[in-house]
Amino acid sequence: MFSACPVRRNDCIGVVKLNINMKNKFYFKCITCGKKYPPENVTYLCPDCEKKNNTNCPPQGILKTVYNYQKIKDLYNNENLFQKLINNKFIQLLPINSIQNLSFLKVGHTPLYLIKSLRMSDMSARLELPFQLYIKDDSQNPTFSFKDRASNLVSAYAKENGINTMIVASTGNAGSSLAGICASQNQMAIVFVPASAPKAKLIQIVMYGGLIIPIDGTYDDAFDLSVEATRKFGWYNRNTAYNPLTIEGKKTVSFEIYQQLNKQLPDRIFVPVGDGVIISGVYKGFEDLLKLDVIDKIPTIVAVQSKGSDNVVRNLESEKFISKKSHTIADSISVDIPRNFWMTKGFIKEYNGEWVSVSDEEIISASKLLSENTGIFAEPAGVASFAGMLKFDKLNKINRNAKNVVLITGSGLKDLKAVEDNIIIPDAISPNLSAVKKLISNYQKKE
Amino acid sequence: MFSACPVRRNDCIGVVKLNINMKNKFYFKCITCGKKYPPENVTYLCPDCEKKNNTNCPPQGILKTVYNYQKIKDLYNNENLFQKLINNKFIQLLPINSIQNLSFLKVGHTPLYLIKSLRMSDMSARLELPFQLYIKDDSQNPTFSFKDRASNLVSAYAKENGINTMIVASTGNAGSSLAGICASQNQMAIVFVPASAPKAKLIQIVMYGGLIIPIDGTYDDAFDLSVEATRKFGWYNRNTAYNPLTIEGKKTVSFEIYQQLNKQLPDRIFVPVGDGVIISGVYKGFEDLLKLDVIDKIPTIVAVQSKGSDNVVRNLESEKFISKKSHTIADSISVDIPRNFWMTKGFIKEYNGEWVSVSDEEIISASKLLSENTGIFAEPAGVASFAGMLKFDKLNKINRNAKNVVLITGSGLKDLKAVEDNIIIPDAISPNLSAVKKLISNYQKKE
Repeated sequence: MFSACPVRRNDCIGVVKLNINMKNKFYFKCITCGKKYPPENVTYLCPDCEKKNNTNCPPQGILKTVYNYQKIKDLYNNENLFQKLINNKFIQLLPINSIQNLSFLKVGHTPLYLIKSLRMSDMSARLELPFQLYIKDDSQNPTFSFKDRASNLVSAYAKENGINTMIVASTGNAGSSLAGICASQNQMAIVFVPASAPKAKLIQIVMYGGLIIPIDGTYDDAFDLSVEATRKFGWYNRNTAYNPLTIEGKKTVSFEIYQQLNKQLPDRIFVPVGDGVIISGVYKGFEDLLKLDVIDKIPTIVAVQSKGSDNVVRNLESEKFISKKSHTIADSISVDIPRNFWMTKGFIKEYNGEWVSVSDEEIISASKLLSENTGIFAEPAGVASFAGMLKFDKLNKINRNAKNVVLITGSGLKDLKAVEDNIIIPDAISPNLSAVKKLISNYQKKE
Repeated sequence: MFSACPVRRNDCIGVVKLNINMKNKFYFKCITCGKKYPPENVTYLCPDCEKKNNTNCPPQGILKTVYNYQKIKDLYNNENLFQKLINNKFIQLLPINSIQNLSFLKVGHTPLYLIKSLRMSDMSARLELPFQLYIKDDSQNPTFSFKDRASNLVSAYAKENGINTMIVASTGNAGSSLAGICASQNQMAIVFVPASAPKAKLIQIVMYGGLIIPIDGTYDDAFDLSVEATRKFGWYNRNTAYNPLTIEGKKTVSFEIYQQLNKQLPDRIFVPVGDGVIISGVYKGFEDLLKLDVIDKIPTIVAVQSKGSDNVVRNLESEKFISKKSHTIADSISVDIPRNFWMTKGFIKEYNGEWVSVSDEEIISASKLLSENTGIFAEPAGVASFAGMLKFDKLNKINRNAKNVVLITGSGLKDLKAVEDNIIIPDAISPNLSAVKKLISNYQKKE
């Protein structure tokens, strides 16, 4: 039935058959049962553990990509290892043959800004910070979100394996990202998305030529349906916490942070958490460096969730996972069943991670504060990390001189609805000076 | 009345009194009467010519910033001049004392992408281009538009002269840009904007802490009112084609293009044109390099206007300037009286520039084509340049192997309304495979 390509591209695929030319470069390891798989034998979850999954619990059988770290150390003679990795664009730590197969778009390599002072509330003056605060601004990506890091790698992997059609379930950003990256790579993206996703993201998907499939249901419904479609039609699936390569794309942010801090580790990194894939990517990047003895410890990573969707952090200490229905303005991190819960929990436990949840009000307020103080305008989900940092500061958890990194994951232009209700744009005035005077004195009265 | 600061910042200003410490670094030259002014004597237009202006014609008396080119050549011994300029971040060609006074945000330094193939229509396959096509993607700026280049320089100049409050009239991008850059510099932005500007840009201004003054009127009304307010209240005005420094900020794109092309000149550069300041900036950058003998000619620059607002190109050949009421989806280049008309005309005449106008349909179609082929999603005004390039190609004006640069000036996320009416997001489907099949076969039928 689907032998013909559903779209106007030149080619279509049947069942994914990966053709890996990277002997012994890496293998997949199931984080649940520990079983190892060469990459030509498995594409998504651990086949054994996947069978036991049910839809009310976070899935088991997520795969971690493990490299031959000793071989890399030997190759580079163990000297100046990180610099050699940089010089080779980290190809030894990526599951692809060649950097050339990545998109020509500038993905990642986003700015890391040192913020020296902040006005911490509406009323106060801008004060010098007693600690170091760095903002890693991943809204500066081709499709204006962090997700491009994952899409870029998955797209390159597909290219190397002769795959031209990719499918993804998304709350909006992963979908617009995949559609944009595929556009640049002459590949086709099929995007399952809840119809309620922010309009900007839906428009992006269509503009990039992605084949959009809006679902009358939740992200979880879209996810399940995309997996069914993958099985039925054989498209290559980019879903996070399903395709293990998304984590490998996302981890590049950690390499950059370490590089941009002149090979120093931050004390804390604040990361917005929904299903737990971004934070796992951040951990994985540092873990790779740890296994190569480039660094000797993993920085403290703080998982920041929205109080209205805290299914990761609320379940970290309990025996049994209990899901709570999500309701938050931070739509990209609004998740009922965090699909990468088990890996996230594993990382946090192993490397002494921390966590915090923030209210919608705290997120909106943090967003305004970040914009006003820095000129960086982020979407609610993307700025939850900053709200988490502010909360840590308020609780006096941040030591003097400590080095903090806050990861911003998406542009504010991607979800205007969320802030629109919380700001005031005054009514239009007549074009004359006395009206200007009146408007400005109104501003003054409010101060 | 306005002695108190209208906002919560620490400081406010009275009348602008510039305190220039850059003896003989540059002077201003009136492009109308040729009179020269040291920068401490004049801030905006040539005082003599300004008196003769009336609101129905493009203003006379625009100032050009002229450097002591011989001194720069001597300083650098005339050897490897361009590389030395790069090493010094072009400080010798900027009207500020120190690069340190620019925003900490990464302004400019945007990617220049070589596009190797395009699908030129909905039906065709993606074909290799017979010429070189580069996209300069200035949507990758802190506030997601080209305007940050101007705001950054004006803000630095203000900082060096003890000014903390800036004012601007804007169709949206210049205002959101000034607000964002000022936020990063702890300065205050007061933004006069037509109330009809795209919502995204209004929201950005407020989020960045800018004091927004929506005008019940056009951009021209906002402009005039902002100039009145400048005279009355003494704020420093960033208006384009009024403050000569905006061109100096914008010209940096030309330095980057020349650098990114490995010190080669393109054959053509396509630039979206509204009031003519961006294109004048592009010319000015190359003119600086010409005067330094870094290059021996100016590339052909193509002014691309919207047919619904072609007040620059329609008047290039006529004796008398005749304005036509604008109506186009490309809001940022929708201008009745192009304020930098005379300088633009001068540059185009002197350096054999070319021009073309494109319809709204051509702009929308070009926008879709660019997004689908490259993953670069630009706002209508920002992508008019690409529509112009496509038109030149259709008219067989582009030679084989010619090197073309298309300047993209703003993110598509800044003006979604414009594309929303021209794309179809299908209705939501129930989350089951047969609904997926049906939707996809609908897509196929349409192909």
